[in-house]
Amino acid sequence: MSQNSPFYHLEGLLGEDVMFLNATITESFQNSEALIPQVSRYLIGAGGKRVRPYLALGIGKLFHSASPKRFLQAASLEFLHTATLLHDDVVDHSEQRRKQKSSHLVWGNEAAILVGDFLFAKAFSLMVQLENPAVLALLAYTATAIAEGEIVQLHRAHDLSLSDEEYIAMISGKTSILFRAATETAAMLARQDPSVAQQCGEFGLNLGIAFQLADDVLDYDSDQRTLGKNIGDDFLEGKISAPALYSYRQSNTEIRAFWQRAMSGKRQKGDFERALEILTQQNILPQIQQRALDYAEKAIKALDCAVDSPMKTALTHCARFAASRSY
Amino acid sequence: MSQNSPFYHLEGLLGEDVMFLNATITESFQNSEALIPQVSRYLIGAGGKRVRPYLALGIGKLFHSASPKRFLQAASLEFLHTATLLHDDVVDHSEQRRKQKSSHLVWGNEAAILVGDFLFAKAFSLMVQLENPAVLALLAYTATAIAEGEIVQLHRAHDLSLSDEEYIAMISGKTSILFRAATETAAMLARQDPSVAQQCGEFGLNLGIAFQLADDVLDYDSDQRTLGKNIGDDFLEGKISAPALYSYRQSNTEIRAFWQRAMSGKRQKGDFERALEILTQQNILPQIQQRALDYAEKAIKALDCAVDSPMKTALTHCARFAASRSY
Repeated sequence: MSQNSPFYHLEGLLGEDVMFLNATITESFQNSEALIPQVSRYLIGAGGKRVRPYLALGIGKLFHSASPKRFLQAASLEFLHTATLLHDDVVDHSEQRRKQKSSHLVWGNEAAILVGDFLFAKAFSLMVQLENPAVLALLAYTATAIAEGEIVQLHRAHDLSLSDEEYIAMISGKTSILFRAATETAAMLARQDPSVAQQCGEFGLNLGIAFQLADDVLDYDSDQRTLGKNIGDDFLEGKISAPALYSYRQSNTEIRAFWQRAMSGKRQKGDFERALEILTQQNILPQIQQRALDYAEKAIKALDCAVDSPMKTALTHCARFAASRSY
Repeated sequence: MSQNSPFYHLEGLLGEDVMFLNATITESFQNSEALIPQVSRYLIGAGGKRVRPYLALGIGKLFHSASPKRFLQAASLEFLHTATLLHDDVVDHSEQRRKQKSSHLVWGNEAAILVGDFLFAKAFSLMVQLENPAVLALLAYTATAIAEGEIVQLHRAHDLSLSDEEYIAMISGKTSILFRAATETAAMLARQDPSVAQQCGEFGLNLGIAFQLADDVLDYDSDQRTLGKNIGDDFLEGKISAPALYSYRQSNTEIRAFWQRAMSGKRQKGDFERALEILTQQNILPQIQQRALDYAEKAIKALDCAVDSPMKTALTHCARFAASRSY
């Protein structure tokens, strides 16, 4: 994590909480088959930014949470997320993740699928230990919705006719609702009123949407070689994302035909360069960056539910950073 | 299901419970992406024997359970099992399941992985609705142990030096603990004492081991063309199971070398026929069948915790059938 990242600053404010989170993660793998910590650490250990658990712990600190359960909750979020990554990489045939070879290429699809299943199950085991039915219900609902979101994406991955609303719903289902669950359940564990918890959920949800839109931009941003992903991944997989959708909507018949062909898998040499050219001509990426910043501001507005504090400021910076990050 | 099967008789005794189970399963897919009910019904609908939910509902009836939660519990068991099947088929590259083409060959690995994830998550959502912390804890523990069991199997799938105990532990981790969880949590939901619930768990566990040993036999039983699996699947995947282990232990150097070569993937034409020949000469399959029957009797003994009733008799027959089934 770069020292300039607001998440680095957030980590500093979390203090000992980070140590307790690490201990909870490590303990979860004790006595496990050797393959499990190997694969998991490959992802959770190395380049993992731990965005979701840090935001959850941040919300906890914002409300001076004294619940030791918050470390179980934070760890379970990271496990759920990591399980999703493992299965995503198999489904998408990705070659890189967080600047290293994808785990399914290192250990094989079999290990990636089964360790993913283990992390899913472990996430639920930790959630059960929270002994909080309302929190548990929200997390179980979220896990189901994420799985369904992945299937919707599989189904509509090449559909350039998606409206803006449909696209935001799709990325919410896939990505942002885990952010919402992270921050909302953190507030619940900190014994906040339902209305406050819901506002915290709005903070997470909108930050998550900003985060995903920024991710979409990065995949088409040729200046961004710092990203731990292959540039052009979405394009090469024919997976529609905000840049393709925005451009398609603002294009004439010829350019629409280009996107349709390219996204249907009938790609030709030089197509990605052509896509970048179109995006530059139409000034698409700044439009999406602005949209991401709007969601970040919506996230920040939701934090009005908390009194001012260094932690609130840190979370505010994280939201803006999520929208404009370069990695 | 054959009308001679004790499970068919069990289904009859369950009466309306079967209807409520079906309704719970169908409701769970309402408003879901179309792919989810399609893939799930392909497995749950058609050839699915619903062994786990029927045993759970049977235990419920044995103790006159009035809890409407038992349908949620039974459905969640079937979802968890179906999720495992979907992922197993991808991991094992199986071509057939329940006499039909494996779902990953019909819809692709992507759909099999993601619908499996959805069913896992849905299973947990249903479990959460049971609102019973002890039941939930046991089910979450079981799901984690199953995932770990799958990984252990991936790791030791070709290891002919497994002791009998290690092998039983391996199939328990992979298969039988879900049977245990099914019957133990059914008794818990029926408000039975912990000691009675534990006995019911023993019933499920031992029936599950008998079930898996019978499955191992069927895969090498050339007379059994009625089975909805490819005969010789385990052998061709180099996956050790009871027949290979039993034969290996009772063999001279030459036959041991044969098993080692065949199980390490260096197979030659005619190897499966040679394996069948060896098993016949050594009289291996009847030995394993006897072992399966021993576990069935252990299962039946555990039912001493309940007073005699038609349901108890039906469950007894199911245990013996699990050990000696021909499909």
